[in-house]
Amino acid sequence: MAISHFYPPRRTLMGPGPSDVNPQVLAALAKPTIGHLDPLFINLMEETKALLQYAFQTQNEFTIAVSAPGSAGMETCFVNLVEPGDKVIVCINGVFGSRMKENVIRCGGEAIVVEQEWGRAVDPDAVETALKANPDAKFLAFVHAETSTGARSDAKALCALAQQYNCLSIVDAVTSLGGIELRVDDWGIDAIYSGSQKCLSCVPGISPVSLSAKAVAKIKARKTPVQSWFLDQTLVMGYWSGEGKRSYHHTAPVNSIYALHESLLLLQQETLEASWQRHQTQHEALKAGLLDLGLEFVVPKDERLPQLNTVRIPQGVDDATVRQYLLNEYNLEIGAGLGAFAGNAWRIGLMGYAAKSENVLLCLAALKKALS
Amino acid sequence: MAISHFYPPRRTLMGPGPSDVNPQVLAALAKPTIGHLDPLFINLMEETKALLQYAFQTQNEFTIAVSAPGSAGMETCFVNLVEPGDKVIVCINGVFGSRMKENVIRCGGEAIVVEQEWGRAVDPDAVETALKANPDAKFLAFVHAETSTGARSDAKALCALAQQYNCLSIVDAVTSLGGIELRVDDWGIDAIYSGSQKCLSCVPGISPVSLSAKAVAKIKARKTPVQSWFLDQTLVMGYWSGEGKRSYHHTAPVNSIYALHESLLLLQQETLEASWQRHQTQHEALKAGLLDLGLEFVVPKDERLPQLNTVRIPQGVDDATVRQYLLNEYNLEIGAGLGAFAGNAWRIGLMGYAAKSENVLLCLAALKKALS
Repeated sequence: MAISHFYPPRRTLMGPGPSDVNPQVLAALAKPTIGHLDPLFINLMEETKALLQYAFQTQNEFTIAVSAPGSAGMETCFVNLVEPGDKVIVCINGVFGSRMKENVIRCGGEAIVVEQEWGRAVDPDAVETALKANPDAKFLAFVHAETSTGARSDAKALCALAQQYNCLSIVDAVTSLGGIELRVDDWGIDAIYSGSQKCLSCVPGISPVSLSAKAVAKIKARKTPVQSWFLDQTLVMGYWSGEGKRSYHHTAPVNSIYALHESLLLLQQETLEASWQRHQTQHEALKAGLLDLGLEFVVPKDERLPQLNTVRIPQGVDDATVRQYLLNEYNLEIGAGLGAFAGNAWRIGLMGYAAKSENVLLCLAALKKALS
Repeated sequence: MAISHFYPPRRTLMGPGPSDVNPQVLAALAKPTIGHLDPLFINLMEETKALLQYAFQTQNEFTIAVSAPGSAGMETCFVNLVEPGDKVIVCINGVFGSRMKENVIRCGGEAIVVEQEWGRAVDPDAVETALKANPDAKFLAFVHAETSTGARSDAKALCALAQQYNCLSIVDAVTSLGGIELRVDDWGIDAIYSGSQKCLSCVPGISPVSLSAKAVAKIKARKTPVQSWFLDQTLVMGYWSGEGKRSYHHTAPVNSIYALHESLLLLQQETLEASWQRHQTQHEALKAGLLDLGLEFVVPKDERLPQLNTVRIPQGVDDATVRQYLLNEYNLEIGAGLGAFAGNAWRIGLMGYAAKSENVLLCLAALKKALS
C-alpha cells in the first residue's frame, strides 16, 4: 500500500456530527504542544473548567473534560454512579437511550426501561408511572437531544420528576450543549455529559462532564471500586483539581484541550442565549426550505431539535445515491438514518459553526438538484 | 475569571512525554475536519492500520488506534482479555506495572505479582519461577519501557517464556514504540498498546493497540461481556473494519487520526531501524554530557532506555527549583521523578522528534547553568 500525506477536502458538515469546526478552533488545535503538567497547561485546565461551567450553566465544582469521545463521557457517568444492584430507570427513544441501558447492565445495575416511539420526546407521564412503580430506583437516565432521531425531550420536567421521586438524574447532552436551552443547576441535573464535536464545533474526541454535589457524594460513598481505572473519577478529581499538588492520572490530550478552550471561549463571547437563538433561526429557514421541497419532518413540531433535522426520504429516492451526490458534487455531508431510521430518513445538522445562512442555502439548493 | 485566547510558548519537551510534536504533524492535525464516516476518512483509517502494522512490525489484522490516551489502551487490553477469575502474572518494576495490577483486579482477575527493584529490568528468572509455580496462569503482563524509571526489559525473552508456559503476553509499549527495537510478530507478542505522545511525536490522546489472532480468539470466546462498552473491542472491530458496511460505534477523533497518520508516515519514511539508531546515538551524546556534569544514572547501563534517561538529583540540589529554572529561562521541560523517584530523580526524554542534537546541547548547557 503506497501511502502519502493526507489532504482532506473542505467539506460542509451538516450531518449529526462532527460539525464544521471553526477555523479559529483548528488554529488553536495546532499550537505548539506543552507538557500536561506545565503550570501554563494547569491554568488552561482551570480556565476550561470555568468555561464549561458557563456552557453547562452550573456552579458544580466537578466539571471537567473526559479525555475521550462522548461515548466515554456516557460511560464515565454510569460506571462511577451505578453500583451493582442499583436500579436505573432508562428512557429509550432512540439509539443513545439503548446505549444507556447497555451501560447500566455492564455496571451490574438493573435497567427499568421506559420505551418511547422513535422520533418522539420522552413522555414525562410514562416516566412518572415508572418512578411510582419503582420506589427503590436510584437514577433516572434520559437523552436530552436524541442524535439518532432529532427529538428533544423536556429535560427540565424530567429532572423535576427525578427529584420528586428521590432519584439522581443522568442526562445525555451530547447534541444539546450549546444548541438549545440547557441549565444544569436550575433544572437540578445531577450528572451530565456532552461531546465536543456537535454544537461546540470543536474537534471530536473530548467529552465535557459535570456532576452535582449529590452525585459526587454518591461516588464517594461507593462500596465497590469503579470497574474502570481510566474512567474512575475519584482518581480524575485529583488530576483536574488546581489546588495544591496535582496527582498524575493520565496524559491529557493537550492540543484537544487547546481547541476545546477556544471553542468554549467563542461560545462565551457569543453568549449562550445568542447561540440558542442562532440555532433556532437557522432551523426555521432550513425547515421552510425543506417543506418547500416536499420533505416531511419525522419529529412533531414541538419536539424538534433545531440543530438536527430529521426528514423522511421520499419514496423512490435512493438514500446512498443522494448522499454520495451531495458529497461528490458539493462537498456537502448530510447524515444517514441510524437504527430504525436507516435507509428511510436523513439527518440534517445545523450545529455550532455550521448553523449559518450560507449552509442553509447550500443545503437546500443542493438537495433540490439531487431530488430533481 | 477573565479568560482570553491561549498562546502557548514554544517549549522544548524533554520529559517523559508528551514529547515535541513534529511541525508537520501539527499541520496535519489542523486540516479541515471531515466526517468520521466519510469514505476518505475510512480510507485514512485503513492506511493508519497499515502504518501501525509497520510500526509494530506485525501482520495482525487487529491493529487499531484506541480513541483515548495510553491508559485507555492499557485498559482496552486487560478489560477485553481478562475474564473474572483469570490468573495474570504481572511484573512490577515501576508505576505502570502497578497500574497493570490495578487493571487486573478491576477486571475480576487474580494478579500474581513478580516484584522487581525500581530502575531495573524485569528479571526473566523470577518470571519463570512464577510461571512454573502457577501453571494455571493465562497471561504474562509486563512493561517493555518503564516510563517511571527509564528501565528497558527484555520483551523478546519474556514473551518466549510466556509462550513456553502457554500464557498470552500483554505488553506495555507506551514509551518503546518507535524508540527501541520492538517486533510484535517475531517476538510473539499477543496484546500490545502504546501512546501517541512519546517516540511517535504525535499529540497525546491516541493509543495504538495490536492483538494477535490468539488474543482475538480469546476475546471471541469470552463467557461474560466486556465490562466496558466504550472499550469493548468486539464492537470496535466492526468500526475499524474496512470490509463491507462499517458499523457505527463512536465518533473517531478525526483530527487526531490525521496527526497519527502523519507521524506514522514520517516514521515509515525514516524507517524504524534509523529511528532506533537515532535514539541510541542521541542518548550516547546526552549520556556523555550528563556524566561530565557529575550526574549518575539510576538504571544500570545494559538496562537503560535511550529515550528516557533517569538521573539522580545531586545532594543539596532542589528538584523543583531546577525544573522551574529550566522552564522559565530556557523553555525547556525535563521530567520530575514519579512514585519512588519523586524528588530524587529527573527523567530526561529524547523521544521521537525531540531526539536530536540541538536538544542534547541545549539540555546539557542549561543543566550546567542550573547546577553551577
